[in-house]
Amino acid sequence: MSAIPESFLKKTAELSSEVTQPFPNSRKIYVQGSRPDIRVGMREIDQHPTSSSFGAEENPPIPVYDTSGPFTDPDVSINLLEGIPDVRLNWILERHDTEQLDGPTSEYGRERQDDPRLVHLRFAHLRAPRRAKAGKNVSQMHYARQGIITPEMEYVAIRENLKLQELRNDLRYAKLLRQHQGHAWGANLPEEITPEFVRSEVAAGRAIIPANINHPELEPMIIGRNFRVKINTNIGNSAVTSSIEEEVEKMAWSARWGGDTLMDLSTGKNIHETREWILRNAPMPIGTVPIYQALEKVNGKAEDLTWEIFRDTLIEQAEQGVDYFTIHAGVRLAYVPLTADRVTGIVSRGGSIMAKWCLAHHKENFLYTHFADICEIMKAYDVSFSLGDGLRPGSVADANDRAQFAELETLGELTKIAWEHDVQVMIEGPGHVPLHMVKENMDKELQDCFEAPFYTLGPLITDIAPGYDHITSGIGATNIGWYGCAMLCYVTPKEHLGLPNKEDVRVGIITYKIAAHGADLAKGWPGAQIRDNAMSKARFEFRWEDQFNLGLDPDRAREYHDETLPKDSAKVA
Amino acid sequence: MSAIPESFLKKTAELSSEVTQPFPNSRKIYVQGSRPDIRVGMREIDQHPTSSSFGAEENPPIPVYDTSGPFTDPDVSINLLEGIPDVRLNWILERHDTEQLDGPTSEYGRERQDDPRLVHLRFAHLRAPRRAKAGKNVSQMHYARQGIITPEMEYVAIRENLKLQELRNDLRYAKLLRQHQGHAWGANLPEEITPEFVRSEVAAGRAIIPANINHPELEPMIIGRNFRVKINTNIGNSAVTSSIEEEVEKMAWSARWGGDTLMDLSTGKNIHETREWILRNAPMPIGTVPIYQALEKVNGKAEDLTWEIFRDTLIEQAEQGVDYFTIHAGVRLAYVPLTADRVTGIVSRGGSIMAKWCLAHHKENFLYTHFADICEIMKAYDVSFSLGDGLRPGSVADANDRAQFAELETLGELTKIAWEHDVQVMIEGPGHVPLHMVKENMDKELQDCFEAPFYTLGPLITDIAPGYDHITSGIGATNIGWYGCAMLCYVTPKEHLGLPNKEDVRVGIITYKIAAHGADLAKGWPGAQIRDNAMSKARFEFRWEDQFNLGLDPDRAREYHDETLPKDSAKVA
Repeated sequence: MSAIPESFLKKTAELSSEVTQPFPNSRKIYVQGSRPDIRVGMREIDQHPTSSSFGAEENPPIPVYDTSGPFTDPDVSINLLEGIPDVRLNWILERHDTEQLDGPTSEYGRERQDDPRLVHLRFAHLRAPRRAKAGKNVSQMHYARQGIITPEMEYVAIRENLKLQELRNDLRYAKLLRQHQGHAWGANLPEEITPEFVRSEVAAGRAIIPANINHPELEPMIIGRNFRVKINTNIGNSAVTSSIEEEVEKMAWSARWGGDTLMDLSTGKNIHETREWILRNAPMPIGTVPIYQALEKVNGKAEDLTWEIFRDTLIEQAEQGVDYFTIHAGVRLAYVPLTADRVTGIVSRGGSIMAKWCLAHHKENFLYTHFADICEIMKAYDVSFSLGDGLRPGSVADANDRAQFAELETLGELTKIAWEHDVQVMIEGPGHVPLHMVKENMDKELQDCFEAPFYTLGPLITDIAPGYDHITSGIGATNIGWYGCAMLCYVTPKEHLGLPNKEDVRVGIITYKIAAHGADLAKGWPGAQIRDNAMSKARFEFRWEDQFNLGLDPDRAREYHDETLPKDSAKVA
Repeated sequence: MSAIPESFLKKTAELSSEVTQPFPNSRKIYVQGSRPDIRVGMREIDQHPTSSSFGAEENPPIPVYDTSGPFTDPDVSINLLEGIPDVRLNWILERHDTEQLDGPTSEYGRERQDDPRLVHLRFAHLRAPRRAKAGKNVSQMHYARQGIITPEMEYVAIRENLKLQELRNDLRYAKLLRQHQGHAWGANLPEEITPEFVRSEVAAGRAIIPANINHPELEPMIIGRNFRVKINTNIGNSAVTSSIEEEVEKMAWSARWGGDTLMDLSTGKNIHETREWILRNAPMPIGTVPIYQALEKVNGKAEDLTWEIFRDTLIEQAEQGVDYFTIHAGVRLAYVPLTADRVTGIVSRGGSIMAKWCLAHHKENFLYTHFADICEIMKAYDVSFSLGDGLRPGSVADANDRAQFAELETLGELTKIAWEHDVQVMIEGPGHVPLHMVKENMDKELQDCFEAPFYTLGPLITDIAPGYDHITSGIGATNIGWYGCAMLCYVTPKEHLGLPNKEDVRVGIITYKIAAHGADLAKGWPGAQIRDNAMSKARFEFRWEDQFNLGLDPDRAREYHDETLPKDSAKVA
C-alpha cells in the first residue's frame, strides 16, 4: 500500500463529488452489444413537453455522445484512489496473445517502483504490465487486417451510431431527424456504422482505435475521417506549477466536458507517478510526447539524448498504458536548414529538441533511423503513432512552407513503414495557417500520408489575438474538420500566454466541441443535426430549461440567462 | 440648457476617463489628406527593440485601423455632455446642397423637443437638422455617379490604406510586409486604394459610405467587398434594463475595441433621447431599425402600424443623424406562408412585425409598396439602406430555404429601385447556416443583389452552444467574410440568453475583429499580414510587452499572462 497524504485524500474526495455530478436532466444509458460485456455508455437529455400554446406534444429524449465514462454513472462509485473499472480487461485476456510481466521491464519503471521516497506519491493499485507474447502483434490494426472484429471495434460502432437506427424507427424523432445534405469532400459516411465498417477502416489505416493493452479502463473510440470528428485536450504540469491531484482533476474535467482523448504533456517532477494516476482514472485514450520525459532524464540537454534512453522511456510509458505517442521522427537533419528564413523558426518543443540533437551530432534523427525498432515496441502493447509535426509553422507567415511539407512527406513514408508492422498511425498537423491555406494542408496530408487520420492543432488563422486563441484556432479547426481532419487538438485562451486552469480547459473544450460538431454538420454526418433541431424547437417554444440542457455547456447558458432575465417564470414561458 | 441629473454628470465624467485611456504603448496619429481638414486618425503601436541575443535591431511602429475616434486622442478633451467634434460639417456646408431647418420636421421630433418633462434627459446641444435643398440628392452615391470625389471618399481611401505606400518605401518594414497570396473569390483588391477607386466602387453600388448629413461627427468608413471587412456592433436598452448613460458607455466601449458601425436597437423608454446622446458622441456610423420605434408609437400592436407613422419615424431619425436604416421591405405577403413548415418560423423581430401586419390586413407590406417614397427620404439626408432579412433562418434547419431566398431576390429588386434614386444600399443576411451552406448565401447575394455589399449576422454554424454563440457565429462570419461579405454583425456570448453587458460587448467585438481580419488575410488584402508578422516576430524573440500591445486586446493578454507567469522578468526575456 502507498501512503497517500491526507491533503490528497481530501482533494480527491471533493473531486469525486464534483466530477460525478450529473448533467441537468440527463441520464446515463448503456447500449448493449453482441455480448454482455459490450456496454456502450451514452447520455440522454430528457426534454419537457411542448406547452399547449405551441400545440402540446411530447419531446423525446436526445442521445448525445458521452466521453465522461463512469464519472457520470450514478451506479458506479468513483474513488480516484482505486481507479475506474477495467472495461476491456476480459477482451484483452481472451485473445490469449499477451502475457502479464513480473513487473515493469523498463529500467526507469523499475527504478521508480523500487524507490522508497516515492511511496507517498504512488498510485495504490499498481498492476504488473502486460505485453504481447513473443512474435505476437496485439494492435487493433493487426486484428483488423486478419479480418477479426474485436469487441473494441464493435464498441466503437455502437458508440458512433448513437442509437440512430432506433431513432429512425421511432416516429417521435421523424421531424428531428431531418437534415441538410452535407458536403463531405470525399469522405465516406455510411448511414449506419457497422462493426465490419470499423474493421475495414482500421485495416485500411484510415482510422485508428488507440487502445493500449495496459489501459483496460479505456472506453474505445475511433479517430478517422469517416467517423465523428474528435477533439483532443492537453494537460500537464511543469516545473513551476501544479500537483498530481490538479492534473487528475483536469483529466476528469476534460472527460466531463467532452474531450475525446487527452495528452499528458507534463514536464515537471514525478511525471511517471502523475501519469499512473491519470491512466488508472482515464476513460479516454491518453497520449504523451515521450521525448519530453527522455529529456528530463538527461537533465534537459538535448544533445545527450540517446536511442537507448528514448527506447527505455517508450517501454516505461507503454507498460503504464499510454495509448498514443507523439514521435517527431520526421524532423530530418536535411530539413532543419529549411527553417532558417522563417519568422518563428521551429516552435514545436519536440521538433526543436530533435533539431538540436541533429545539429549537435550532425547526424540523422535517431527516431527516424530507429523507426522500425519503435514499431516493434508499439505493436507489443498496441500504442498508436501520432507522428509529430516538429516543423509545423508557428505563425501564419511560415504556413505551408517547404520545411513543413517536406516533413509531412516524410511522415507519409514513415506511415508506410508503420503499416508494414500493422501499427496504427495518425499524423499531426499545424498550427498557424491563414484560412485560405487550410485546405491545402488537408489535401496534401490525405495524399502524402495515404489517408491516415489527420490530427491538427487548430490551426490558428491569425496571430493577432493572444487571449483569444481558442477562437482564432477554433475557426481553422472547424474548417479543417470539415475538409476531413479526424481529430482537432484543442487550444485554450491561455495559449501563448501561460498554463490553462480548469476554466480554460472548459472553454477550450466547448470551443472545440463546436468546431467538431460544426464539421460533422457540414460533412453531413448522419444524425448530426438532431441536437440542433431539438435545440431550435425548444428555442422556438421558449422551453428555456431544455435549451440550457441541450447545449454543450448547460451551466454557462443558465448562468448567462439568469444574469439579465433572472425570473424563473421566463424559463417555462 | 437641459438640466442633466447629477448622477449622469458623474457617470459621464467617469466614462470620459475610461474611454479616453490610451492603448498601451500606442500613439494616435493623423494622416493628412489633400486639404487640412482631411485628417485621418490611426493608431500606431510602438515596439521595443530586439534584444542582442536575437540580433539587436529596431522594430518599427505598426499602424493599425482605429475606430476609437477622438476618444483616444490626448489632444481632444472629451466631454460627453458636449458631444465630439464635427469633423464633416464643413464638407457638408461647402457642397451648398443642403439647408438648415428651423427644427425637426417630424411630428414626433417636435413633440419630444417641446415636451417639458424631458428636459432632464435631453442632450444639451441640440442642433437644428439639415436637409437636402428641394430637388437635391445628397447621397455619396449621387456625388460618385456625377464623378465627384467627396472629402468623405478621400478620407476613406487614406483610412483603408493604413500608410501602406509609406511603409513599402521604408526598409524597416520590408520583411514585415511579406504576405501570402490570398484567394479573393473574385473580389478586386488593388495594391493602393485611391480616392477614385472609392468613388467608382460607391458609384457602382459595390460599396457604401454611410454618412448622414446630420451626423457630422462621423469619421467616414466604407463597407464593400473590395475593402477591409468591417464589423457592426449592436447595443440597445429595453423596457427592463439600462439607462441612457449605459448605452452611451457601450457605444464608446464599442468604438474603443473596434466596432466599425453600431446599431442602436433600443426599444425601451426615451429612445429618441438616447439616440441623440449616442449620435452626438459617435465617431462611427449609427444604424437603427425604425420599425421598432414605430411599433412603440402604436403601443406594440403591429396591425396598427401605418405608412404615415413609419414615415414620420424615418424623418425623425434621419434628422437626428442616423446613418443607415434596417428596413424589412422584402417581407412580402406571399412569402409569409413559406415559413409555415420551418422549425423556427420567423425570428427576425422586424420580420415578424411586418409579417403580422401583412396577415392582419391581408395586404402587401407597406414598406414594399412605399419603397420609392422611402428612397425620397433617404436621399434628402443620405441615409443608407440596410435591407433587412426579415425571413432569415433562426436555426440551421431553416437555412437557405425558399422563404429566405425569395426575400433575398426581392431585396435585389429593391436594390435596383434604390439605385435609381442614387440611394446607398447594403443587404442583410443570415443568421444560422451550417458551414457548408454559407458560400451559397454569399454567391446568391452577389448575383441577386448585383454586388451590393452583404452584411450578415454571423452566421452561426450550429445551434447547440448557447453561451458561446460569439464563437459558433464567429466561425461562420470568418468564412462568409472570406467569400466576400463586406460587414459582419457581431454576436455576443449572451445571444439567445439575455442582454449583453459591457464585457460581453468586448468579447463579441474581439471575436469579430478576429473574423474580419482572418477574412482579410485569406482574401489577401494588401498589408493585412503586417500585424501578424510583427506579433510573430515579437513572440519568437520573447518580447512579451510587444505581444500584448500588438494584440487585439492587450489588457486581456497581459492579465492571462500574469495569472500563471507573474514575474516581470519573463516579459523582457
